[in-house]
Amino acid sequence: MKARIKITLKNGVLDPQGKAIEGAVKGLGISGVSDVRQGKYVEVDLAESDPDKARAIVERMCKDLLANMVIENYSYEIG
Amino acid sequence: MKARIKITLKNGVLDPQGKAIEGAVKGLGISGVSDVRQGKYVEVDLAESDPDKARAIVERMCKDLLANMVIENYSYEIG
Repeated sequence: MKARIKITLKNGVLDPQGKAIEGAVKGLGISGVSDVRQGKYVEVDLAESDPDKARAIVERMCKDLLANMVIENYSYEIG
Repeated sequence: MKARIKITLKNGVLDPQGKAIEGAVKGLGISGVSDVRQGKYVEVDLAESDPDKARAIVERMCKDLLANMVIENYSYEIG
């Protein structure tokens, strides 16, 4: 079973990486791109085949390790 | 219109960040987690409202800026 986890900065948290990308996009001559936010994406293989148990494992990984809950949100798909 | 872009390492490309996460997960006492791969996730707002044109903008951003096509793949959703 595979889990696909996205970790994004909460709204209102400054995102200098996103701003840098936005600047570089403008530098390429591409217009109409705004509010760029960069996050992390993690794919994992889970030995667990029960979706509820797999979900519990991913929740724990996200809360204890991958996301800084003060400034980041996480979301994931399992399948 | 929003675009959600995932940039992942190609299969076979070594992923030291993923390996570090895998080690840390084991250190937390969570078992059954393997093949961890870390990528990037980028969200952008597009002024363009035509899906085909928006897609062309995102393709260009990915190829010219966000992804290193030698070692990375990209995928995206628009909506």
